[in-house]
Amino acid sequence: MTVTARVPASTANLGPGFDTLGMALGLYDEITVTTTESGLTVRVEGQGAEDVPWGPSHLVVRAIERGLEAAGVWAGGLDVVCRNVIPHSRGLGSSASAAVGGLAAANGLVARLDPSLTLSDAQLVQLSSEFEGHPDNASASVLGGAVVSWSEDPADEVSPRRYGAVRLTVHPSIRVVVLVPEERSATAHTRGLLPERVPHADAAFNVSRGALAVVALTSRPDLLLTATEDRLHQGQRASALPVTTRWVSALRERGIAAVVSGAGPTVLALTTEPFPADLRTAAEAEGLRVLDLDVADGVRVS
Amino acid sequence: MTVTARVPASTANLGPGFDTLGMALGLYDEITVTTTESGLTVRVEGQGAEDVPWGPSHLVVRAIERGLEAAGVWAGGLDVVCRNVIPHSRGLGSSASAAVGGLAAANGLVARLDPSLTLSDAQLVQLSSEFEGHPDNASASVLGGAVVSWSEDPADEVSPRRYGAVRLTVHPSIRVVVLVPEERSATAHTRGLLPERVPHADAAFNVSRGALAVVALTSRPDLLLTATEDRLHQGQRASALPVTTRWVSALRERGIAAVVSGAGPTVLALTTEPFPADLRTAAEAEGLRVLDLDVADGVRVS
Repeated sequence: MTVTARVPASTANLGPGFDTLGMALGLYDEITVTTTESGLTVRVEGQGAEDVPWGPSHLVVRAIERGLEAAGVWAGGLDVVCRNVIPHSRGLGSSASAAVGGLAAANGLVARLDPSLTLSDAQLVQLSSEFEGHPDNASASVLGGAVVSWSEDPADEVSPRRYGAVRLTVHPSIRVVVLVPEERSATAHTRGLLPERVPHADAAFNVSRGALAVVALTSRPDLLLTATEDRLHQGQRASALPVTTRWVSALRERGIAAVVSGAGPTVLALTTEPFPADLRTAAEAEGLRVLDLDVADGVRVS
Repeated sequence: MTVTARVPASTANLGPGFDTLGMALGLYDEITVTTTESGLTVRVEGQGAEDVPWGPSHLVVRAIERGLEAAGVWAGGLDVVCRNVIPHSRGLGSSASAAVGGLAAANGLVARLDPSLTLSDAQLVQLSSEFEGHPDNASASVLGGAVVSWSEDPADEVSPRRYGAVRLTVHPSIRVVVLVPEERSATAHTRGLLPERVPHADAAFNVSRGALAVVALTSRPDLLLTATEDRLHQGQRASALPVTTRWVSALRERGIAAVVSGAGPTVLALTTEPFPADLRTAAEAEGLRVLDLDVADGVRVS
């Protein structure tokens, strides 16, 4: 049996929606899993082929195993081929995509073995979010479109944290452009730059913009500039991301709703007009890759 | 010339949406304004007739004057009659309704004097929000339905703070019940109970619930219980509102999305089922008025 999962990249936060808002983006990793008699073989092509650990500790493999375990089935052995396109450590959710892709591939095997055991989208959101501890990127790659995601403290000390998400249909006039710097960012490091406490007024500020972002993304793209304002994470991480911060400011000054994609360093721009040619040229001259991306559907298995 | 403004009550916050979310409720004050040769007469009937200051300092009168001034017209004199139904100091937005009603009545006069000078909804949101310094209640009474509102720091030190709001269409299966205690609350006092700083995690928590609330109110009422969770104001004010806090908890334990309405003490419950008879009886036995209210349209002038 062979299944292939095609899983989109994602952006998280979208400005105010820290650990909450996400959006699936049209860059895809493909994970092909074939059942074998025994053993495990893993081959990685493309992004991260040199530095992603191979073998059983590989995130995709752990996700496949988790998906099979959750459904209660097992395969004698697995051959896994990853064709990676999503840049790593750039704020485009490559880890979440790996987790979602592995789980979805496992679910594809499950569906062929016993359709009644197939995991639901809600289960895929839960299991994939457990890998990272927050659901914004992962739920976007599961559900597609834009997402509002959340997590809930467990009722007791042994249950896992609960994750949920709903898909939003992104207004068709919204265009997505990402500016991808060469340098990488480590989310663990940039998370450490966030303060323990923030002004109540800043919390209320992001509540208003986060709620407005749902409206702007779905029906009022004219409000995107206001709806992507943030006081909870971008300013706090600015010193670690000087190029990113400069570009976010430059784009916003031109009226383009630009934010840090996830924990950076990629810049996400949401526009209803073509991206200005002079800004594209300037960004590329600085070594940033400028990509026009579709809002993607969720992971697909074939 | 005589015009009458019929202005709905409102609830604010709806749990996570501190200073952001609002909803117009089907309790109406009526303000009738008649132009006269000169002078000012004010008559107040109903709620607050005993304790609302009469004469030029009356909030409704100040709002009428502000509306006329903004449109650039003036009347020789005014006779104002307020028929008040919205309870005062209960968290049902009576002050915002007074401001909106006065402005809308003035706008009704303006429309008859010179329709080209009529104030827009956006102007009414701005002017009414200036009275309170936040736009959640006022914009609900202007626009009707539920609202996402926001404010923006002025670009310079002389400009007024800018306010904006968008209307949401509330899902038709959502029913609104309010439990109105006898005791009053002063927003100024309860605002003083809010901390200067809050944990970053609590800010992120409310961002997620506030964004989810937009989804729940418009299309996913099954998510209302999760979407009305709050960590930014209700717990911090609980000691000042013991009856309210107890009822919010009791309702939530029964699966009903209950929150503090505005700064309290009214409890707002959003349900898709009839309100349980045993809870209604118990609340009334404690002296709370239990009212089933419609989601209202915005202020109307005739």
